[in-house]
Amino acid sequence: MGLTFEISATSGSGGRRGALHLPHGTVETPVFMPVGTAATVKTVQQETLEHIGRDAAGAQIILANTYHLYLRPGHDLIRRMGGVHRFMSWPRPMLTDSGGFQVFSLSELRKVTDDGVEFRSHLDGSKHFFSPEHSIEVQIALGADILMVFDECVETPATWERTKQSMGLTHEWAARSKAYFEAHKHEVPWAAEFPAKHQSLFGIVQGGMFADLRRESAERLVEMDFPGYAIGGLAVGEPREVTREMIARTLEVLPPDKPRYVMGVGYPDEIEEYARMGVDMMDCVLPTRAARHGLLFRAPEPGEAETAVRMNIKRVEYAEDQRPIDPTCTCLVCGRYTRAYLRHLFVAKEPLGATLNSIHNLSFYLDTMARVRRNLESRSTSA
Amino acid sequence: MGLTFEISATSGSGGRRGALHLPHGTVETPVFMPVGTAATVKTVQQETLEHIGRDAAGAQIILANTYHLYLRPGHDLIRRMGGVHRFMSWPRPMLTDSGGFQVFSLSELRKVTDDGVEFRSHLDGSKHFFSPEHSIEVQIALGADILMVFDECVETPATWERTKQSMGLTHEWAARSKAYFEAHKHEVPWAAEFPAKHQSLFGIVQGGMFADLRRESAERLVEMDFPGYAIGGLAVGEPREVTREMIARTLEVLPPDKPRYVMGVGYPDEIEEYARMGVDMMDCVLPTRAARHGLLFRAPEPGEAETAVRMNIKRVEYAEDQRPIDPTCTCLVCGRYTRAYLRHLFVAKEPLGATLNSIHNLSFYLDTMARVRRNLESRSTSA
Repeated sequence: MGLTFEISATSGSGGRRGALHLPHGTVETPVFMPVGTAATVKTVQQETLEHIGRDAAGAQIILANTYHLYLRPGHDLIRRMGGVHRFMSWPRPMLTDSGGFQVFSLSELRKVTDDGVEFRSHLDGSKHFFSPEHSIEVQIALGADILMVFDECVETPATWERTKQSMGLTHEWAARSKAYFEAHKHEVPWAAEFPAKHQSLFGIVQGGMFADLRRESAERLVEMDFPGYAIGGLAVGEPREVTREMIARTLEVLPPDKPRYVMGVGYPDEIEEYARMGVDMMDCVLPTRAARHGLLFRAPEPGEAETAVRMNIKRVEYAEDQRPIDPTCTCLVCGRYTRAYLRHLFVAKEPLGATLNSIHNLSFYLDTMARVRRNLESRSTSA
Repeated sequence: MGLTFEISATSGSGGRRGALHLPHGTVETPVFMPVGTAATVKTVQQETLEHIGRDAAGAQIILANTYHLYLRPGHDLIRRMGGVHRFMSWPRPMLTDSGGFQVFSLSELRKVTDDGVEFRSHLDGSKHFFSPEHSIEVQIALGADILMVFDECVETPATWERTKQSMGLTHEWAARSKAYFEAHKHEVPWAAEFPAKHQSLFGIVQGGMFADLRRESAERLVEMDFPGYAIGGLAVGEPREVTREMIARTLEVLPPDKPRYVMGVGYPDEIEEYARMGVDMMDCVLPTRAARHGLLFRAPEPGEAETAVRMNIKRVEYAEDQRPIDPTCTCLVCGRYTRAYLRHLFVAKEPLGATLNSIHNLSFYLDTMARVRRNLESRSTSA
C-alpha cells in the first residue's frame, strides 16, 4: 500500500478537507509542506518543527531535495543510513522532488537529450547524468513517502511550440519514471520495517502558461494512472492571474479522488486561495528564505486590507517595539521575543535571528492552512 | 542586597560547593557560564538554553559582552527595553564584562590615558571613549546581576615593569569603578521590579604571569572590599602550568567567603581542574565557538586517557557513523542525531549544524560542572 486519500468535505469553490495516509503517518489536507533542502529545514531543529503551529501540532510532512542530497552526502550513503527519515531523524511523512528543477535552475552546462540531462554540479563542477530511471533510483534510496516523476522544466517565457515539445518529453519521462518505480519500489530502505507499505509516485502536469497544453498534459498523466498529481512549472515569474488560471484549468481534468499538489507556491494568501480552489498540497521555500532575509508575515490589524501583512524586521521603526511579531500568533517566538530583539539579532547578523524568524514564518504558514482546514470543515457539505 | 554566597562543603584540594543568590535567581557553584556575546548565546534559542544539561536544568547564568551591546544596539536602548534580561527574554542571572577585553582585542586605534581608553568601533570605525565610570554606567543600563570593574588588559608577553605599571592603572580604575557604581547602582532598569535588590560589582585581579604581582593585585583589591573577585588576564597563550600557578597563588590571597571567578577559561578538563582548586565561576566562548568549527567534546571510552575527548566532526570517519556524539550524554542532540547527520550538516554548511553542535558542547560543559558539584558534595566535609 502506498497511500490512501480520504476526502471528508468539499466546499462550493472546490476546496477539499482530506486526510492522506502515508507509510510514515497521516497528513491532514490541505497541507503546506516546509522545505528541508539538504535534509534540514534551514536553521530549525527537528524537535521544534514537530511542535510549531497552533496546538503544537508541528509540520505534518516536509520536503527534501533530491538534487542536493544526491550530490551531498549522496543517496547511497543515505540508503545505508536507512533512508532520509532515519538519516535526519524525522519520523513523519516526507516528499522528495525529482531533482529536475534544481538541475535546470542551479547546475551548469546542461545538455538535454531524450534520454536525460547531463549537468555539472554547482558545488564542484563534477559531471553527472540524470535520467528518469536514475532520478527514481535516487528517490527510492532516499525513501520519502512520496516521490516525483523526473520532468523537464521549460525555460520561461517559452512559445507554445517549445512548451508542447518539452511537455511531450515530460510525458515520456513520466512513463519511464513509473515503469522504473514499479519494477524497483521494493528496494526502498525501509522495506523491512514496513513490509506492507511502499512509496507513492506522483505525476507532474506541465504545459507552461497555455491552458490547452495544461489540459492535454493532465489528460495524458491521468491515463498513466498515478496515485497523485502535481502541477509543476508555475510561480516562475508569471502574473498571479495566470497561475490561478493554469491551476483552475488543470484541476478540472484531474480526478477528484486523488491528491493534487501545486509545487513551489507561494505567499500566505496564495496558498490559502489555491487550497480553497481544491489544491491539497503545496510547498515553498518562501517562509524560511524570507525569514533569513528578515521578511516576516503577520495577521492584519483592524484597518489593514491584506490577509497576511509583510514586515521587514530590519526597519528602524521596530528598534524599540516591544510587541511580538504578531500579537494573535501562538508560536514560541511571538510568545517570548519582541520585535526589538528580533531586529537587533537581524542587524547584528546573529544566527538566532534566522532561526526565530523561520519558526514564526513556518508557524504562520501552518496556522494559515489549519484555519483553511477548519473553514472547509464548517462550510462544507460532507462528501 | 546584591548577592549572598553560601558554601555548603569544601574539599581537601580547596574546591567549594556553594550557592550564589542573585537578584534573578540562585546559581549552584562551581558554575560554567555560557557566553551570550550580543545578547544571544550564538545559534541557541533561550528555551533550549533553559533546558540543556543533565536533568534539563539548563544554564543557570550567562554572560553578555558590554563592548558589543554598547556598540549595537546601544545600552540606552537596552535600558529603555528594561535591561538585557527583558531585552533578550532571559529571566535567569546574567553577568556582563566591563568591555575592557574587547576594547583591547577588537577595536582599532586605541589610545590609553590614565582617564580611560579612546578607541574606534570594529563595526564602523566610529570613535568612542571608555572610562571606568562610563563602563559602569553602561553596565548599570544593561542591568546584569553581576558587573565587572573596567581594567586594562596588558599585552602579552609583557615585562614585570610593564605589567606592574598596568596593574597600578587597573587598581585605580577599580576604585573609580566602585565609586561610580556605589553612587549610581540605584539606576539599574529593574530597580522598581526588585526594590530591595541591586547589582554586584566584582573586582578583577591582574598581574600578568608574575606570582608576586598577582598576590599584590589580589591584596589591593581585597582592601577595596568587593562582593566577589575575578582573576583576569589568563588563558592568553601562556602554558597551562603558568595559568594554574597564577590561579593558585591568587586564590591563597582571596577571602574564602567570597565567590571567585576565572575569566575566559577553558577546555573541559581545565574548568574541572580549576573548580577543584576552589574557583567558583568560569566562562568561555570555547564550547560554542568550537561547535561552530565542528569541534565536539565527548566522554572518554574505555582505554582513552583524556577526560574530555575532542572530535572533529568533519572527518570522513564519521560519514556513516550512526552513533550519537557521546553515547553517555543525555543532551537532546545525542538523544536524536547521529554523527553521520552532524557531519553532513557541517560539510554542507547548514546552520542547523552549528546549533546542534553548540547544544551538545554546552551540555557537555554544564554536565562536567554538575559532576564536579556532586563530587564536591560527596567527598567534602561540611563547612
